[in-house]
Amino acid sequence: MIIVIQCRDQVGLVAAISALMAKHQYNIISLGEHVDVAENLFFMRLEVEAHVENPGLHQELLNILPAGAVVKINPQPEKKIVVLVTKEYHCLADILVRNYFGTLGAAVQCVIGNYNILEDVCRRFDVPFHHAPYDTQTKEQAEAQISSIIKQNNPDYIVLAKFMRILSPQFNHDFATRIINIHHSFLPAFVGANPYRQAFERGVKLIGATAHFVSDELDEGPIIAQQIIPVNHGFTAADMMNVGREVETAVLAKALKLVFDDRVFVYNNKTVVIE
Amino acid sequence: MIIVIQCRDQVGLVAAISALMAKHQYNIISLGEHVDVAENLFFMRLEVEAHVENPGLHQELLNILPAGAVVKINPQPEKKIVVLVTKEYHCLADILVRNYFGTLGAAVQCVIGNYNILEDVCRRFDVPFHHAPYDTQTKEQAEAQISSIIKQNNPDYIVLAKFMRILSPQFNHDFATRIINIHHSFLPAFVGANPYRQAFERGVKLIGATAHFVSDELDEGPIIAQQIIPVNHGFTAADMMNVGREVETAVLAKALKLVFDDRVFVYNNKTVVIE
Amino acid sequence: MIIVIQCRDQVGLVAAISALMAKHQYNIISLGEHVDVAENLFFMRLEVEAHVENPGLHQELLNILPAGAVVKINPQPEKKIVVLVTKEYHCLADILVRNYFGTLGAAVQCVIGNYNILEDVCRRFDVPFHHAPYDTQTKEQAEAQISSIIKQNNPDYIVLAKFMRILSPQFNHDFATRIINIHHSFLPAFVGANPYRQAFERGVKLIGATAHFVSDELDEGPIIAQQIIPVNHGFTAADMMNVGREVETAVLAKALKLVFDDRVFVYNNKTVVIE
Amino acid sequence: MIIVIQCRDQVGLVAAISALMAKHQYNIISLGEHVDVAENLFFMRLEVEAHVENPGLHQELLNILPAGAVVKINPQPEKKIVVLVTKEYHCLADILVRNYFGTLGAAVQCVIGNYNILEDVCRRFDVPFHHAPYDTQTKEQAEAQISSIIKQNNPDYIVLAKFMRILSPQFNHDFATRIINIHHSFLPAFVGANPYRQAFERGVKLIGATAHFVSDELDEGPIIAQQIIPVNHGFTAADMMNVGREVETAVLAKALKLVFDDRVFVYNNKTVVIE
Repeated sequence: MIIVIQCRDQVGLVAAISALMAKHQYNIISLGEHVDVAENLFFMRLEVEAHVENPGLHQELLNILPAGAVVKINPQPEKKIVVLVTKEYHCLADILVRNYFGTLGAAVQCVIGNYNILEDVCRRFDVPFHHAPYDTQTKEQAEAQISSIIKQNNPDYIVLAKFMRILSPQFNHDFATRIINIHHSFLPAFVGANPYRQAFERGVKLIGATAHFVSDELDEGPIIAQQIIPVNHGFTAADMMNVGREVETAVLAKALKLVFDDRVFVYNNKTVVIE
Repeated sequence: MIIVIQCRDQVGLVAAISALMAKHQYNIISLGEHVDVAENLFFMRLEVEAHVENPGLHQELLNILPAGAVVKINPQPEKKIVVLVTKEYHCLADILVRNYFGTLGAAVQCVIGNYNILEDVCRRFDVPFHHAPYDTQTKEQAEAQISSIIKQNNPDYIVLAKFMRILSPQFNHDFATRIINIHHSFLPAFVGANPYRQAFERGVKLIGATAHFVSDELDEGPIIAQQIIPVNHGFTAADMMNVGREVETAVLAKALKLVFDDRVFVYNNKTVVIE
Repeated sequence: MIIVIQCRDQVGLVAAISALMAKHQYNIISLGEHVDVAENLFFMRLEVEAHVENPGLHQELLNILPAGAVVKINPQPEKKIVVLVTKEYHCLADILVRNYFGTLGAAVQCVIGNYNILEDVCRRFDVPFHHAPYDTQTKEQAEAQISSIIKQNNPDYIVLAKFMRILSPQFNHDFATRIINIHHSFLPAFVGANPYRQAFERGVKLIGATAHFVSDELDEGPIIAQQIIPVNHGFTAADMMNVGREVETAVLAKALKLVFDDRVFVYNNKTVVIE
Repeated sequence: MIIVIQCRDQVGLVAAISALMAKHQYNIISLGEHVDVAENLFFMRLEVEAHVENPGLHQELLNILPAGAVVKINPQPEKKIVVLVTKEYHCLADILVRNYFGTLGAAVQCVIGNYNILEDVCRRFDVPFHHAPYDTQTKEQAEAQISSIIKQNNPDYIVLAKFMRILSPQFNHDFATRIINIHHSFLPAFVGANPYRQAFERGVKLIGATAHFVSDELDEGPIIAQQIIPVNHGFTAADMMNVGREVETAVLAKALKLVFDDRVFVYNNKTVVIE
């Protein structure tokens, strides 16, 4: 059984929580805890051996925690997700393969694309694909269509697997802290069009990727995972894009595993990841 | 205040420990815990805010823990170490620099070398150097000399910073779980003489280093930290040795920081590192 | 046009080769060269801009190179491969996805499995799957069946994508330097059964993977690519296997790209990889 | 003998150069070459076995290269450098240690600090230290003092080893492409004061460092080397600074080795690094 708790910090929290576990004879297998001292916030992920169901545990925990505590017990082991894509296949295919073999930690409800290029690969894995074009309808109409499909599927998370349209603040707000995005990252950062071209012209030696929850601003929001891959002067801008895709695939996969495994807490504009 | 605990696992340990902290109004800043379920072992590192001394805390903890528990409270913030070297400077110089600038987390009591090549660099940092030659005395005599110098200095740890003599089982036993060694590592492993030559001939693409506590067998014992560095066909065996030195220096520095910061627990032939 | 050359080294080779390119007005875009001084061997990969076909170029090159030189000009841009699998999907699925989207640099002719567990995923990508069981026929019969299927497909390379049967020396000899294997790697190496269990018990901090050409000995042969991923005491043996699969997938993908792009030279028991 | 060449590209360059080597019976040990096709630029680093001096070689090479070619033959094996520092010791100490043991590939002529905190460590290694304060004289005066000391020492390179003053465009211009800087790097980049505080507040998962030649703009200029180190939510802003220092030390060391080994070419705002 996995228990995740996020609340104001106070003296004795770990004691109270673990006393409750002991009272029920739950043995604690792993306990990850973090306190943000400056913000006075407490985060805990517990994995316990429990041999019987205990429907009252949620309330028992709330009773011993400060007001406003968020508690999730035994979060549904298999999350539900909807995936948004454009043309690039790399992140989607990785998700579809893990979904098919049962190792994703989530069930893909459907895929929505603003192009229909990736419909065939979804069909091959028996995953419903919806086409929400941005050219034959307005952006508002397309987003309303996407929003409607998402709401019908009621997913835990929405994964932007290289979805290349900017979603409106309203959309992001509607699905707050439930949208996960992957994007390339550079040292230094390159603002504006064609960042791979800029990275190439600057001769960067690393290409990175960042997976993050989406906040109001484009490519901002709490970071879940990051990684880099080395490049050199022999890489063309196209080569840099290719290795960028490899690292995007790997970083998104890692971030999804952490989120689906209930290891990621979000507050302010950052995350606590209890591995 | 840092508290480290290692004992048999049982239901309610975290509760009991943290209730004791709460009773004393110690706020838990960070709590790292690990249970080895198969071995029924419990490990905890606590960092607490405590505003007054409490000399009875050690006994209070033992009272609530299973028999045989090992508890260290507020381990002396600065450890004492003795460093053994042969001819290579890279790990020693890194230790001396951090020692001089007060960032090592330990105080170097002295350096012992089976050659005197590194005496000058020690002198420049005002660190005593002892020469324990293996050519003008027997191995047993040299080891007895080393052992005697160590015992006079009463260090918490002995660091083998590229000490290229094999220490006797008796020596290792005398200073059990207090000797830290660094050595190169390869994929695959190369047994026998001149591993860098073998690595070169096999065309390995990675050179690694492993920092570990010394057990009875050479280059065996609980692993503290490991890292690798990429190489390629353009590297000569000498180039591989050079990058091997870089990664050895970095891995030993990281391992020492973890150990001196009381983050490393040892049991069976492995470690728990609570970062 | 890509040209790869492997021959005895002698003074003036680069001059002679590049003079020939200049004579034909081929501009050299990239030139990677390596000399193994001790072995007196010369390796070159040339990428040139050539606007017309030149069927005589191969002979012209042989004319200026030492006896016994191996020259490949404009190697067929798309290699043909046969993939061997057992039960694990991770490497195969990655290959099938890249094959489907045309980014593998090779065309998968068919997949052969000693179990038929992975037949369905092949079928979904329209790739022929052959079942070569080891339980209803002898090992010799199974290997003969595999060998026969391979020969019918005439592949450039055979990829062991987690094929868990040991192939006979005769088989390896028949397809010498054309079989690519991926396997987990550890620091230190663990010999014998269940290496992940051994790695877990030793508390390793890294899990690695090695892609290599197969030589006569199991898990030996010239190394093409290696990479590692960090682990810690919180990883169970099963968790280590899972991250091991991630790094195996990534390393095999990288190795295949290098090989299919004609960047890998093999000699003695090692490779030169001209990136 | 090492030869480095940078010039306009044209058909037959490699042929002409290597024919010249062959004429003199110089055997080419390693040849690294890069062509920037878009910019029509050619870069080469040659390592040759030459048994006799050849003072005319420089002119012979210029004779066969396009106008404006830059050729350096057998660049003085030991470069001369001046190091600028402020208060942080990590990069300076690493340079001093390598300088002392003869593995830096350059000789440190002197160190200049705007504070005198690091004078003692220089003195311990017998390296002259000059104090160029910014508080008892104007910035212009301090820079004039620094410039004067540099000119007296006539170094090949000036290394900013955590020099925390902004140098004037005139200064940077005077020592163009000879100033090497190291600075922290983040994904995303953080503009303004206290980037480690910003990185902490954003919850970054990586801290990086970039070594680069200094151009007119602060922290801009051709990148020589980059690397990162993982961090997590348990790192305070101070912890992030500490690991930032580790990666800065490692990246500057690598960049200096590449530069002193004549492996780095600069053009436009980027580098070619022939490893």
